Amino acid sequence: MGKQKALMDKLVRTFQIRHMLLRQALAECLGTLILMMFSCGEVAQLVLSGGSHGMFLTINFAFGFAATLGILVSGQVSGGHLNPTVTFPLCILGREPWRKFPVFFLFQTLGAFLGSGIIFGMYSGEGNLEMFYDDKCPNNNNNNSFSSCHNATAGIFATYPSKHLTLVNGFFDQMIGMAALIMCILAIVDPYNNPIHRGLEAFTVGFVVLVIGLSMGFNPARDLGPRIFTALAGWGSEVFTAYSYWFFVPIFAPFIGVVVGMTVYQLMVGYHVEGEARENREEEEKEENQKCVKQINF
Amino acid sequence: MGKQKALMDKLVRTFQIRHMLLRQALAECLGTLILMMFSCGEVAQLVLSGGSHGMFLTINFAFGFAATLGILVSGQVSGGHLNPTVTFPLCILGREPWRKFPVFFLFQTLGAFLGSGIIFGMYSGEGNLEMFYDDKCPNNNNNNSFSSCHNATAGIFATYPSKHLTLVNGFFDQMIGMAALIMCILAIVDPYNNPIHRGLEAFTVGFVVLVIGLSMGFNPARDLGPRIFTALAGWGSEVFTAYSYWFFVPIFAPFIGVVVGMTVYQLMVGYHVEGEARENREEEEKEENQKCVKQINF
Amino acid sequence: MGKQKALMDKLVRTFQIRHMLLRQALAECLGTLILMMFSCGEVAQLVLSGGSHGMFLTINFAFGFAATLGILVSGQVSGGHLNPTVTFPLCILGREPWRKFPVFFLFQTLGAFLGSGIIFGMYSGEGNLEMFYDDKCPNNNNNNSFSSCHNATAGIFATYPSKHLTLVNGFFDQMIGMAALIMCILAIVDPYNNPIHRGLEAFTVGFVVLVIGLSMGFNPARDLGPRIFTALAGWGSEVFTAYSYWFFVPIFAPFIGVVVGMTVYQLMVGYHVEGEARENREEEEKEENQKCVKQINF
Amino acid sequence: MGKQKALMDKLVRTFQIRHMLLRQALAECLGTLILMMFSCGEVAQLVLSGGSHGMFLTINFAFGFAATLGILVSGQVSGGHLNPTVTFPLCILGREPWRKFPVFFLFQTLGAFLGSGIIFGMYSGEGNLEMFYDDKCPNNNNNNSFSSCHNATAGIFATYPSKHLTLVNGFFDQMIGMAALIMCILAIVDPYNNPIHRGLEAFTVGFVVLVIGLSMGFNPARDLGPRIFTALAGWGSEVFTAYSYWFFVPIFAPFIGVVVGMTVYQLMVGYHVEGEARENREEEEKEENQKCVKQINF
Repeated sequence: MGKQKALMDKLVRTFQIRHMLLRQALAECLGTLILMMFSCGEVAQLVLSGGSHGMFLTINFAFGFAATLGILVSGQVSGGHLNPTVTFPLCILGREPWRKFPVFFLFQTLGAFLGSGIIFGMYSGEGNLEMFYDDKCPNNNNNNSFSSCHNATAGIFATYPSKHLTLVNGFFDQMIGMAALIMCILAIVDPYNNPIHRGLEAFTVGFVVLVIGLSMGFNPARDLGPRIFTALAGWGSEVFTAYSYWFFVPIFAPFIGVVVGMTVYQLMVGYHVEGEARENREEEEKEENQKCVKQINF
Repeated sequence: MGKQKALMDKLVRTFQIRHMLLRQALAECLGTLILMMFSCGEVAQLVLSGGSHGMFLTINFAFGFAATLGILVSGQVSGGHLNPTVTFPLCILGREPWRKFPVFFLFQTLGAFLGSGIIFGMYSGEGNLEMFYDDKCPNNNNNNSFSSCHNATAGIFATYPSKHLTLVNGFFDQMIGMAALIMCILAIVDPYNNPIHRGLEAFTVGFVVLVIGLSMGFNPARDLGPRIFTALAGWGSEVFTAYSYWFFVPIFAPFIGVVVGMTVYQLMVGYHVEGEARENREEEEKEENQKCVKQINF
Repeated sequence: MGKQKALMDKLVRTFQIRHMLLRQALAECLGTLILMMFSCGEVAQLVLSGGSHGMFLTINFAFGFAATLGILVSGQVSGGHLNPTVTFPLCILGREPWRKFPVFFLFQTLGAFLGSGIIFGMYSGEGNLEMFYDDKCPNNNNNNSFSSCHNATAGIFATYPSKHLTLVNGFFDQMIGMAALIMCILAIVDPYNNPIHRGLEAFTVGFVVLVIGLSMGFNPARDLGPRIFTALAGWGSEVFTAYSYWFFVPIFAPFIGVVVGMTVYQLMVGYHVEGEARENREEEEKEENQKCVKQINF
Repeated sequence: MGKQKALMDKLVRTFQIRHMLLRQALAECLGTLILMMFSCGEVAQLVLSGGSHGMFLTINFAFGFAATLGILVSGQVSGGHLNPTVTFPLCILGREPWRKFPVFFLFQTLGAFLGSGIIFGMYSGEGNLEMFYDDKCPNNNNNNSFSSCHNATAGIFATYPSKHLTLVNGFFDQMIGMAALIMCILAIVDPYNNPIHRGLEAFTVGFVVLVIGLSMGFNPARDLGPRIFTALAGWGSEVFTAYSYWFFVPIFAPFIGVVVGMTVYQLMVGYHVEGEARENREEEEKEENQKCVKQINF
């Protein structure tokens, strides 16, 4: 046991990363990878099995629990954002430094990219490769073929609009959904309004994601990473150009929704609890100062 | 970072509302809005998608989790009642001042009104407008047309009786259901009989709502606000007059049920734990008084 | 507010019950009533709506959550047994006095009786009365008619064996199921092996009930009370005599299962953790005695 | 009561096992038995009832909750591994002594063996025996007959590959799944990165199992024990030889997956939090040493 312990200690010393931001970025990467693997794996099962309607609820559950697991793995190290639209409002509110935003975004996207790669590898290996590339479509060069042939399987990894949805409607949908999501998340992580037991935050965020249900589109990193992967894996540049450059929507709409949701939450709840906490603090300091003055005068 | 921090502090000072009741009313409004958006959005999805039976469970879940999220957002500030029939027994039992009741009722109704407006906006924008107004009904002026044409879509927002239900039956249904609901809620928030971890109350109330399942009708604010919205949004005054003024039932029956449930709970559990706690307190005071007497005599 | 407070205090003094056992029995009664209302209401909905298979999961959930709610309401006062087969092993292990067992059994049965009465009232009032008594059966006097005509509706309230199940098989099924249930419950409430957060016990027991799923038959009080009610409400003495006096099985089999499960748990886990705790306690006492001796010798 | 108490004390003294490892092994055995009974019972119900697709979700839930219950029963005594692939990485990381691994593996397999025996007894007693042995297959001596006749019922107890799955694909599937599972479990039980409330660990692991869903194959003890039972109970040696000795896969693939998952987790999260904790400890010791030096010099 002594020898094993020494070896373990040596491994810790060798592989420990001392740069805090890099360490947090790695945790975000692993967390998003896990989020991606569990949520995406469930969708892949559904789509490749022919898509029975009864499993709609299963997917919502999978998304919620995938978020919970991702947060559990990375939460202690990096806070478990797993989503640039969660890092963003925390930077605006001054609770996280701005330099975290681009680094986290990059590593979250990388994690989602790797996660979708693993899922692709697992299912393409089971003889489902032809389902991914769908040989029945004769000419998949023109724009229309994408939606009819590849949409379902590409949709395992990234978001595509449903049929009767215009770009503007899709934009507002994503914006309002993200606004609702961020209001709940801000309430859960608000240091002045935190009704949730510390060890339950991961579960609570998971429940929020579960309830909103459409969460896949509300995570720019979760959407962009797998989209790049599908472009490289054989679906081609159509994943970006299809539906009049739809890929812009799940990247930008959530950020606008975050700003709307954050503003509403702060105006209706956040500023008041924060202000009250500040006033209490100031009063306490005042009292202490007076005590000091008294003691000095004494 | 210093500049951003100063700006944030200034925002807090500007927007902080110091009037406690108004602040709580705003939190109730936001909480009910969130409750409305999540629960109503799920029903809208179900009704507009043609109504597959398999999603019945999904709706129960959505109602339960919507309640949990609404309580999480507002709980620390206002207690997270989100329902006048929760405020009502707390006022009767002397745990909340009576002036809160009308203010909370108004802002809860307002929140539900706004929430149903957002859902209406989201779904009417997706080309479902004709489903909401159903052009296939030729003469929607006579009273009968309401139930056959508009009922399903109006039922997304407010409660309407099922076919074979008389007004009296509906009244008793709502009354008994609300009595069961309030017994559980009183047990959860009873300061003398509180078996639930503080951070879990929101989840527990959500579970209660989930189990009862018919919860939509048990919240007068959740029913009245959206009903006013639908009246303004094009369904007309029929939402009030239909089914021999049914709209009275989901407003008054829950209050009567609350009184019944509260009385049963207090007689069978509440008064005994409260009395015991009081006696313990009195004994402690007595002992302390005796100590004081002894010390004085000493 | 002062006047209201005085009135409330007076009510507490008037209705407070000082007899501890009676108070606990009332809490058990209310808890079992709530357990009955929620679980039975769900089954009634399923059976009366024609019995769609897809809601099987809903019923399991309803049973689990109904147990959780019943425990929440009564737990602080009486421990929230809600089931004589939970009171029984605690009496055997010496953790509860034996006189509690008959009193709790009586009041649990009473609560289940009242709960089934409320559900009967709610659904018979909605024009489903003919479904309960099924006019289509011409001669419901002979023994066979029971199973074919009344079984489904009587089965809302109490347990009846499925078709191909003999009395002996049913007995062993209930015995093994109860043994598994009690092992989990004993682990959860074991004072020497308690891995569960205090505020989570109610939820955990609810989960156990949810997993076992067949829980309805595992509660003699939950079975006997409603069976008496159905006998009085019009199904007649057949509810006792049907299936060669089947009603004995759900009353006695669980108690035998409890003894088996308790023995296995105690031999494999319980005695060891209890013995260890006792030894630790004895050692501490010994050390303290030695200290005293030293101090005296000093 | 005094007499009963004395008897209870005597029973504790008689049956208490003082050998720590044996005691832990017994707890692991009972925990795995419970895990097996609940998970396997649900699959048996599904397969024997003809296999309705709608209960796929139920099985995932049953597996998750079965793991939770097994951990609850055994956790305080043995840690509640219930799975040799959980004991394995803890031995590698030096958190458990290596001698525990073979003992736990043996008793976990024994528990799963006994659990499958109980389920076999329960269901074969209900007249389903012919379903287990399927008389319709005329010549069940040749290798092919196994898959077509016995697969479904043997699959209640142990894992068999789905039709289009080669041995290599199945191996990688199990490996990747186990890697994902162990990353989450390591994060949950990591003493330096433990975001989960102590009393919630059992639930969290249950959720992980629920999300992964394919968990049956990821537990060598859960697979080997029942496989031996089915070999003895009448399916014969085919349960080992079928599908080109498939039974090796669910025993070895998870261990390789565990090594992969553990390495990824340690490199990306584990070593950094451990290293940081060590540094903090060393600094504290240094400061204390300096204090001592100062005091001596003083």
